Amino acid sequence: MPCVSQALLPPMSSWTLEQVGKHNSAESCWVIIKNQVYDVTEFLNEHPGGSGIILKYAGRDATRAYEPIHPLDALDKNLPASKHLGPLDSDATSLVAQAQQNRKKTKDELRVEDALKQRPPLRRILSLADMEAVARQVLSHKALAYYSSSSDDQMTYQENARAFTRFFFHPRVMRPVSRCDPSSTILGFKSSIPVFISGAALAKLGHPQGEANLTKGAAQANIIQMVSSNASLSYEEIMAAASPSQPIFFQLYKNTNDDVAEKRVRDVEKLGYKSIWLTVDAIVAGNREKDIRSPWALDDIESGRTAFHVDAVDGAVEDSDVGLGIAGALVASDDRDMTWEKTIPWLRRITKLPIVIKGVQTVEDAVLAAEAGVEGILISNHGGRQLDYSFPPLEVLYRLRRQRPDIFDKLEVYIDGGIERGTDVVKALCLGAKAVGLGRPFLYAQSAYGVPGVVKIVQILEREILTAMRLLGAASLQDLIPEMVERVDWQPLLRPKL
Amino acid sequence: MPCVSQALLPPMSSWTLEQVGKHNSAESCWVIIKNQVYDVTEFLNEHPGGSGIILKYAGRDATRAYEPIHPLDALDKNLPASKHLGPLDSDATSLVAQAQQNRKKTKDELRVEDALKQRPPLRRILSLADMEAVARQVLSHKALAYYSSSSDDQMTYQENARAFTRFFFHPRVMRPVSRCDPSSTILGFKSSIPVFISGAALAKLGHPQGEANLTKGAAQANIIQMVSSNASLSYEEIMAAASPSQPIFFQLYKNTNDDVAEKRVRDVEKLGYKSIWLTVDAIVAGNREKDIRSPWALDDIESGRTAFHVDAVDGAVEDSDVGLGIAGALVASDDRDMTWEKTIPWLRRITKLPIVIKGVQTVEDAVLAAEAGVEGILISNHGGRQLDYSFPPLEVLYRLRRQRPDIFDKLEVYIDGGIERGTDVVKALCLGAKAVGLGRPFLYAQSAYGVPGVVKIVQILEREILTAMRLLGAASLQDLIPEMVERVDWQPLLRPKL
Amino acid sequence: MPCVSQALLPPMSSWTLEQVGKHNSAESCWVIIKNQVYDVTEFLNEHPGGSGIILKYAGRDATRAYEPIHPLDALDKNLPASKHLGPLDSDATSLVAQAQQNRKKTKDELRVEDALKQRPPLRRILSLADMEAVARQVLSHKALAYYSSSSDDQMTYQENARAFTRFFFHPRVMRPVSRCDPSSTILGFKSSIPVFISGAALAKLGHPQGEANLTKGAAQANIIQMVSSNASLSYEEIMAAASPSQPIFFQLYKNTNDDVAEKRVRDVEKLGYKSIWLTVDAIVAGNREKDIRSPWALDDIESGRTAFHVDAVDGAVEDSDVGLGIAGALVASDDRDMTWEKTIPWLRRITKLPIVIKGVQTVEDAVLAAEAGVEGILISNHGGRQLDYSFPPLEVLYRLRRQRPDIFDKLEVYIDGGIERGTDVVKALCLGAKAVGLGRPFLYAQSAYGVPGVVKIVQILEREILTAMRLLGAASLQDLIPEMVERVDWQPLLRPKL
Amino acid sequence: MPCVSQALLPPMSSWTLEQVGKHNSAESCWVIIKNQVYDVTEFLNEHPGGSGIILKYAGRDATRAYEPIHPLDALDKNLPASKHLGPLDSDATSLVAQAQQNRKKTKDELRVEDALKQRPPLRRILSLADMEAVARQVLSHKALAYYSSSSDDQMTYQENARAFTRFFFHPRVMRPVSRCDPSSTILGFKSSIPVFISGAALAKLGHPQGEANLTKGAAQANIIQMVSSNASLSYEEIMAAASPSQPIFFQLYKNTNDDVAEKRVRDVEKLGYKSIWLTVDAIVAGNREKDIRSPWALDDIESGRTAFHVDAVDGAVEDSDVGLGIAGALVASDDRDMTWEKTIPWLRRITKLPIVIKGVQTVEDAVLAAEAGVEGILISNHGGRQLDYSFPPLEVLYRLRRQRPDIFDKLEVYIDGGIERGTDVVKALCLGAKAVGLGRPFLYAQSAYGVPGVVKIVQILEREILTAMRLLGAASLQDLIPEMVERVDWQPLLRPKL
Repeated sequence: MPCVSQALLPPMSSWTLEQVGKHNSAESCWVIIKNQVYDVTEFLNEHPGGSGIILKYAGRDATRAYEPIHPLDALDKNLPASKHLGPLDSDATSLVAQAQQNRKKTKDELRVEDALKQRPPLRRILSLADMEAVARQVLSHKALAYYSSSSDDQMTYQENARAFTRFFFHPRVMRPVSRCDPSSTILGFKSSIPVFISGAALAKLGHPQGEANLTKGAAQANIIQMVSSNASLSYEEIMAAASPSQPIFFQLYKNTNDDVAEKRVRDVEKLGYKSIWLTVDAIVAGNREKDIRSPWALDDIESGRTAFHVDAVDGAVEDSDVGLGIAGALVASDDRDMTWEKTIPWLRRITKLPIVIKGVQTVEDAVLAAEAGVEGILISNHGGRQLDYSFPPLEVLYRLRRQRPDIFDKLEVYIDGGIERGTDVVKALCLGAKAVGLGRPFLYAQSAYGVPGVVKIVQILEREILTAMRLLGAASLQDLIPEMVERVDWQPLLRPKL
Repeated sequence: MPCVSQALLPPMSSWTLEQVGKHNSAESCWVIIKNQVYDVTEFLNEHPGGSGIILKYAGRDATRAYEPIHPLDALDKNLPASKHLGPLDSDATSLVAQAQQNRKKTKDELRVEDALKQRPPLRRILSLADMEAVARQVLSHKALAYYSSSSDDQMTYQENARAFTRFFFHPRVMRPVSRCDPSSTILGFKSSIPVFISGAALAKLGHPQGEANLTKGAAQANIIQMVSSNASLSYEEIMAAASPSQPIFFQLYKNTNDDVAEKRVRDVEKLGYKSIWLTVDAIVAGNREKDIRSPWALDDIESGRTAFHVDAVDGAVEDSDVGLGIAGALVASDDRDMTWEKTIPWLRRITKLPIVIKGVQTVEDAVLAAEAGVEGILISNHGGRQLDYSFPPLEVLYRLRRQRPDIFDKLEVYIDGGIERGTDVVKALCLGAKAVGLGRPFLYAQSAYGVPGVVKIVQILEREILTAMRLLGAASLQDLIPEMVERVDWQPLLRPKL
Repeated sequence: MPCVSQALLPPMSSWTLEQVGKHNSAESCWVIIKNQVYDVTEFLNEHPGGSGIILKYAGRDATRAYEPIHPLDALDKNLPASKHLGPLDSDATSLVAQAQQNRKKTKDELRVEDALKQRPPLRRILSLADMEAVARQVLSHKALAYYSSSSDDQMTYQENARAFTRFFFHPRVMRPVSRCDPSSTILGFKSSIPVFISGAALAKLGHPQGEANLTKGAAQANIIQMVSSNASLSYEEIMAAASPSQPIFFQLYKNTNDDVAEKRVRDVEKLGYKSIWLTVDAIVAGNREKDIRSPWALDDIESGRTAFHVDAVDGAVEDSDVGLGIAGALVASDDRDMTWEKTIPWLRRITKLPIVIKGVQTVEDAVLAAEAGVEGILISNHGGRQLDYSFPPLEVLYRLRRQRPDIFDKLEVYIDGGIERGTDVVKALCLGAKAVGLGRPFLYAQSAYGVPGVVKIVQILEREILTAMRLLGAASLQDLIPEMVERVDWQPLLRPKL
Repeated sequence: MPCVSQALLPPMSSWTLEQVGKHNSAESCWVIIKNQVYDVTEFLNEHPGGSGIILKYAGRDATRAYEPIHPLDALDKNLPASKHLGPLDSDATSLVAQAQQNRKKTKDELRVEDALKQRPPLRRILSLADMEAVARQVLSHKALAYYSSSSDDQMTYQENARAFTRFFFHPRVMRPVSRCDPSSTILGFKSSIPVFISGAALAKLGHPQGEANLTKGAAQANIIQMVSSNASLSYEEIMAAASPSQPIFFQLYKNTNDDVAEKRVRDVEKLGYKSIWLTVDAIVAGNREKDIRSPWALDDIESGRTAFHVDAVDGAVEDSDVGLGIAGALVASDDRDMTWEKTIPWLRRITKLPIVIKGVQTVEDAVLAAEAGVEGILISNHGGRQLDYSFPPLEVLYRLRRQRPDIFDKLEVYIDGGIERGTDVVKALCLGAKAVGLGRPFLYAQSAYGVPGVVKIVQILEREILTAMRLLGAASLQDLIPEMVERVDWQPLLRPKL
C-alpha cells in the first residue's frame, strides 16, 4: 500500500524538525534516529515490540529509545531503502543535539550515574555474587528488569541455582595436585577453563559497548562467547571486535520463514562464526512479569506513585501498549513448528558448521538429539525465563548420567543456568558436562565494569575451579568423575547473597 | 405458638417507625428489610446464624446487615406469609433512607471506599496473585475474613497450593505447537479452557452484584460456573443473569430433610441448571477462626483497641452470640448421614441431571463413586476450609493416577484448591484431571473489578496455559500426559505472593 | 549436730523480728514463713534448691519466695518438729504484714498485674494457642521460664509438635456421623474425651490456687488429672479439691530411698489416687537454660541491664547459687538406678493400683514394659525438657504401630508432648493411642483463667475432636484407624503461633 | 644477591630511628620488632603473607602488626643471623615506646576494650553458644574474620553443624546410671571426656597469651591439646606452659621441602609432643572471603565508609596487596604432592610417634589410611574452611560405620567440625568415634576469658555429656552404640544461636 504523504515529498536531501513533526500519527509516522529520518508508517504493525512504543516518538527524535536495544543494521534489515528519507538539515541536527543535552535526566538516570561513581574498585570483587550486587546498583531499571526477570514465580530460576546446593563432594586426599590444569575444549576449540559465555541478548542495555565487551573480554581470558541472534550489536560489529582467530559461536533463533533463517545462517558462517546453537527452548516468550511490568513500574518511580496508589484513570495511554515485554518482542517471529525430522536436516543442508541444540531439557530429547547426529546439546531452560517449573539443568544432567551414560560418548553435553561458583562448574564436570555456560553473570560484569569486568569473572571462576580441583584431588578435568559428587537427601540451606 | 402482639394489630397496610420500634426484644421481634416489616419472633431460634445477630436489629432497620449475605428470596422461603407484615409508611421510608444517608461510615467502610478509588487499572493485573492483592485491599473486613479464612492452622490451605510446587515439568522440544488449543468439555459442555468456577458462596459480600458477576463473566469468557446452594443471589436471579444456552452447574448442599432437599433439586433442574454437584466435604463447618473472630476483630478495629487490650468486662454483649462464624450458619441444616447406598440412588430418582460428587478425598472413595455410577468426582477439601491436614487434592489425584488409572475411564475427575497459575492447571491435566475448579480467585476478581475482573482471570489463565502447553510441546490437552510431570524429592521454595 | 543458738532460747511461745533477725547466717539460720519461725540451719545443705536461696532470707520473712513452689506440708515433711520454733508475736506479725503491703512491687509484678487486667474475655479464646498467648502475658518471668523451658536447643520440644504436622488425613465421606461420640476410658475410668492432664509440677507458680484449679476443672469437664509428685499443693489438698468419686492418677518420682518411696506410694493409695504413673524419663534434670537463667535474667530486667552489659564484678553474690534451676532441685533425690527387674516387682508389692510407665521412648522399652506386665505406658520425653534430640512421641507411636502392633493389645498406650489441636489427638488415636496427655496447655490455662480456663481447654479440644471425627467419617473412637493417617514425605510448614 | 646498603653499615651495636628510617623501600627494607632491627629486604618476596604488608612498615616499628600472628622464633627460623642488625639505641627505644603509648586507638580497638569490660561473669556462660556470643563481642575485627571465616558460601561450615540435628536419640530407660563415667583415652592417653582441642592456629590473635591458654586449660581440665604447625607461640613456648607429663599432640603441616618438614618433626618429637597429626585437607587455602576482605572491611569501618560507597580511586594502595588472606599465607609452602605411597613411609622413617591422618573425608580414604597402617584418622573438612560442599564429618562417619565397620577395629577414628553440644559428642561416639575435636569453641573461649574460659568449655561439655549419657541409659562410653541414634528423614529446624 503506497504511502501518500511520501509520494508528495520533493526530492530533498535533508529535513527540518517542522517537516518531520507533521508525520506524528499512525497515518504517517516518521522518526529521527541518529539524525536520519525514517518513514515507519508501514512498519508499525510489523514491529515486534508493538506500534505503541514507536508512536510515542512519532514525528520526533527516537534515538535514545532505539539505540540500547537495536543493532546498527536493524533499520537496514527491516526497512526498505525507500523509507530512508535522508538526514536532518544542520539546524535540525543541532536542535536535536541541544534538546538531548538540555533534557532533564530522569530519577533513574541520576541514580545510575551516582551508582557508577560509587562502584567499589574491581579488585574488591571476590565472587560472582559481589559482581551481581554492583550490577544491581548501576543498571537502569529497564535493563535490570530485563536481565534479572524470569518466568512466573521464579521457581525454576531459583531451583536452577539451588540444584547445585544438593550436590556435595567426596574429596580425595593424598594425591599430587601441585600441577593442576583446568583448560578444556568446546567443539574442539580451546578454552582456558570449561566455561563459555552463553547467549544473552541486549548487552547494550547495560553498557554502551554492549556485546563487544564480552567479545574482548573473552579474547583476553581465552574463553568462548556464544552470540545471540538478538544481540544489540550487529553480528559484523561483534566480529569486528574480535581478535584474529578468536572462536565465536552463534546462537540461532530460527525465523519461522525458512528463507530468512537460511540467510541468517549463511551470513554468520561467512562472518566466521564457528558453530550454530539452535535455540529450541524459546519458541514463545515466557511470562516474565518483571520485564512486562517495567515500563509502568518505571513511570511510577519517576512520578513518585506507588504500585497500588495510581489513579485508576491516569496512566491509561502509557499502559495501553505493554503486554509482552522485551522478551515477547524478541521471539515474535520465531519458528514454533520445528521438528527433529525437518529442522536438523534443513540446517545441515545450509551450513557446514557444527550444530548444538540449545534447550534440551529431558533425557528423551537428549537421546533424540544424539540420534539426529548433532555435535552437542546445551541442557538449558533459558535461565528460568521460559517455562516455570522446568527441571533444573543439573538435575537433567544427573538423570542423563544415570540413565543414559552412553549419550556422553556420542555428543558433547553442556549445561547453563544457576552457576554461581567454581564448585558449581566442577560438579557439572564430575557428572559429565564438557563445559558450562553463564549468561547473566557476564551481562552483569560488562554492565558494571566493561571488558575488565568480563575478565574478572573468568579470573574468579578459574581461581575457584583450581582450588576445588586441588582439594578434590584432581589434577586435570579428566580426574573429575561421578563418584566425586553425591546428591544428598537433606535440604541444604539457601546460599546467601551479598 | 401464636404471637400475641401480632394478633392485636389492626389490619393496616403500612407501619410507622414508632410502631415497629416497640417490637425490639426476643418476646416480640420485628425488623425492617428494604422498607418491609417482618415479624421474626418465632424464627429467632431457627436462624442458622443465631438469634443474637437478629436481636441486634430488633425493632429497627436491618437491611444493611441482611442484604450482603441473603438472597432475595430468603425471607419468602424461610418465613410464612403471615409474618410479612407489610411496608413502612412513607414517612418511615424517608426516615430510614435519611438515616442510612446520615449514618457515619465506619472506619472499615471508609478504608474500602478509599481502596476502591486507588485500584490499579485492570490491564496492570498480570496474575492471580495481583488480583488477590487488590481484593485484599478493597474487601470489607468481614468479607475478607469469610473469603480467605481456612480451618485451624491453615495447613491444608497452604499445602493445597504448595503441592503444585512439588511437581516439575519435563518439557519436550522440537514439536509443532504454533496451533495450540486449550479448549475442553466438562460433562459434555464446552469450555474455552479446562477451568470452571467452583462453588463459592456469598459473592455479594464482596460486590453488590454478587454471583451475577460470575455468571456474566463466565458467559463472556466461555467457561462454566458452578453455583453454590449458599449463593447470596437466588438461583432465579443467577439464571436471569445468564446468556441464552449458557450452561450452569449447581452445587448441592443436601438438607437433612429429604423433602426440602428434593424440592431444591427439582427447582434448580426446572430453572435450567445442567448438573448437580453433591457436596460431601462440608457436613459440618470447619473451624475457621478468622471468620469466627471477624465480628469482634472488627469491633476492635473500629474502637481502636488491640486484640489483647480489651477491657475484660466490655464487649460481653457483642461477643455472646458468635461461635460458629458464617460457615457454621451455612451448613447448620445439612445432612450428616449421607451414604453411598442411600443418597446416590435417592438423588438419581429425583433428577435426570448428571451427578458429580464434590469432596472426594481418597482413592478409596473415588472407587466407591465410580461403583456408584456417578458422572464425575471433584477431588476437593473445600479449599482447606474444612478438615485441617486433609491431603492436598493434587496429591490425591497423583495417587489415584498411580493406584487406579482405570477410574479415569469411568468418570470425569476434577480437582480444586490451591490453583494459582496456568502451570498448575496443566499439571493437573497431565495427571488426568478433565478440568480444574477455582473458587477464591473468582470471588476476589468479582470483588475487585466486577465482571471484567472475572473475564480477566480467564484471560490470564488462558495465556499462561497456552504458554505452558507450547513450551511443553503440547498442541492440545490430549498431549498432556503423566510423563510430563515429576514429583520431585526436594523441597521447593514457597511461591512469593505479591 | 545440736544447734547451740537454739539450745539457749527460753521456752517462749512467740518471737520478735529482732530475735529472728539475729539468726541471719549459715551458722544459725532462721526464717519466717506465714508468721511461723523455723530453724533451717541444719537443713541448709539438704535443700534440693541449694542453700543460697534460703540464706538470702536468713533472719527474715521468706513467705513470698517459699509459697509458690512448696506444698503446705513441705516443712512438716522435711523439718523435725523441734525446728518449728513457734509463731511471731503480734507486733511482728503486723510488721511483717505491713512490710508486705508497703513493699514496692517489682517491674515484673506490675507487668503481670497489668496483663491480668487486660486479659481478653474467655469466650474469645478459640484455640490452645490463644490460651498460651494470654498465659505468656500474665505469667511472672520465673513461672514462664519454668513452664516454657525445655532442654538445650529446644529441638525435641519443637519436634514434638512438628511431628504432628507430618501426618495428614485421608478423610472418608458419605458415612453417617450426625451422632458422634468422643468419650473414652483410661485404665477403665471414664473420660469425656480421650485426653488427660499430664503430670505438670508447680501450678502455684502460675496461679494462687495451683493444682486445685486442675482438679476442679477436670471434675467439671469430666476428664482425668494426673498429679505430679512435685505438685505445689499437698496430695491431701488436691484430693480435698476433688469431687466425690472423681478419679485422679498419681505421677510417681521414685525416691532413691526405697522406704521414702514406699511411704509416698502407700500414702497416695490411701488418699484415693487411682493409679501410679512411674516416671522414668527424669532421673536427672535436663539442661533447661531458660529456667537456670531465670533468676539473673529477672535481676537484669529489674535493674534495666541487658544480658551482655552487666558489670562483670557486680551480681557475683546473686549468681553464685544458681546452676540447676528449679528442675534440678525437683529431681535431686530421684532414683537413678531403677531397672525393669527390680523396680516393677517392688512397686507391685507395695500397691494394688494399676501401674503405668511414664517416659518410654523406644519400641524396645515398650516391649519390655509389656513383658513386665504393667497396665500401660505413656510414651513421653517429658515435653522436651529432658534429653534434647529424643524422638517425638508421635514418631515412637508410629514405629510401635508398624513394628509391634501386638503391644497395643497387651497394655494401654498413651502419648504426651506437642499436642496443640484436636486433630493432633485424633492422629494419635488413629495410630493406636488410647488417650493423650497435655501438660503445659493446662498449666497455661489455669494460670490465665483459673478453673474456667481449664474447662475451656477441654471444650476447645472436644469441639475440635468432634469436627475432625465427623469430617473423617468416624462416629466413634473405634472408627479411627491407621489407614486414616499418612506420614507424608514432604516438609510441612511450621504451624503459626498467634 | 648482596644487599649494598647493609654492606656499607659500620659495625655498630645499636640504631637510631633516623638510621632505620632511611631503609623504607623495597630496595632496602628494615623493620623494628620489639626494639630489634632487622633487614628484611631479601625476605620480602619469600614472606608467605606477601611483601605489601611488610613494606607498609618499612623503616618503622612493626611490632604491633607482627606480634599477634608470629611465634617468638619466627624471625630466627626465617632470617639468617646476618640480617639481625641489633637493637635500637636507648633514645629510639623510648621514642618507640612513647609513640606506642601516644598512638590513637582505632575504633575497633576501642570497641574491643569496651566489650572486654562488659563481659558477663563466667558463671553465666551456660553453653558453647553463650561463649561464642561473648567472643564475637570481644574479638578484634581481624581476629573474628580469621576465626569465624569459612570457604565460599559457608555451606559446609553450616552443614557440619546441621548434620548433628539430623541424628535423633532412642533413649533407653530403667538402666542403672547413678555412676556414669565419660572418661576416655586417645592414642592411649587419658582424657576426662572424649574431647580434644583440635589444631587451631593463631591463638594470639584473640588473646595475648595465645596457645598457652589452651595448654594450661587442657592441663586443668585433663584433656589433650593438638598444637598447630601454625601456632602463634613457638612449639617450645607451648611446651613450657604445659604441666609435667601433660600429653600434647602436634598437627603437622608438611613443608613441600622434605628436609624442612623432617626437621620440624624431629624438633617436636624432641620437645616431647606425643603424636603427629598429618594434615592433608589444607594443601591449598580455601576461599575464605571474610578473611580476605578483612583488611579493607576494617579500613571502611575506621573511615566510616560503607562497603559500596568507597571512592573508586581511593584505597588503591591499601588494597593492592590483599588477595589470599591469612589462610593463604599460612599454607603457602605446604606440600601439594603428598601420596599414601610416599608420604606415610617417609614419616614413619623419621619419627617413632603415632601417626594420625587429619582431613580424611571419604570412606575410600579411611580404608587407604587403615591399609597404610596409621594409628588414627581425624575425619575433618577443616571446619568448613577448605572445600565448600565437602561432606559433613558426621555424615562421613555414619557412612564409614555402615559401609566399613571393620575399619573402627583397625585404627582410632575421630571427627571434628560443627560440634556445639554434649549431645553432639555423644552422637559421634554412638557411631564409633573414639573422641571428637573442637577448634573454634576453644579459640573463642580463650579469647573471651583466657584459661578459665577453656576450662569452662570442658565443664559445660562434661555436664552435657553426663546428662545425655544418663538419659540414654548409658553408664560408660562403651554403652553408646549405633542403635541409640537414628538419622531422621525429616528436616530438623535450625538450632537457635544466642
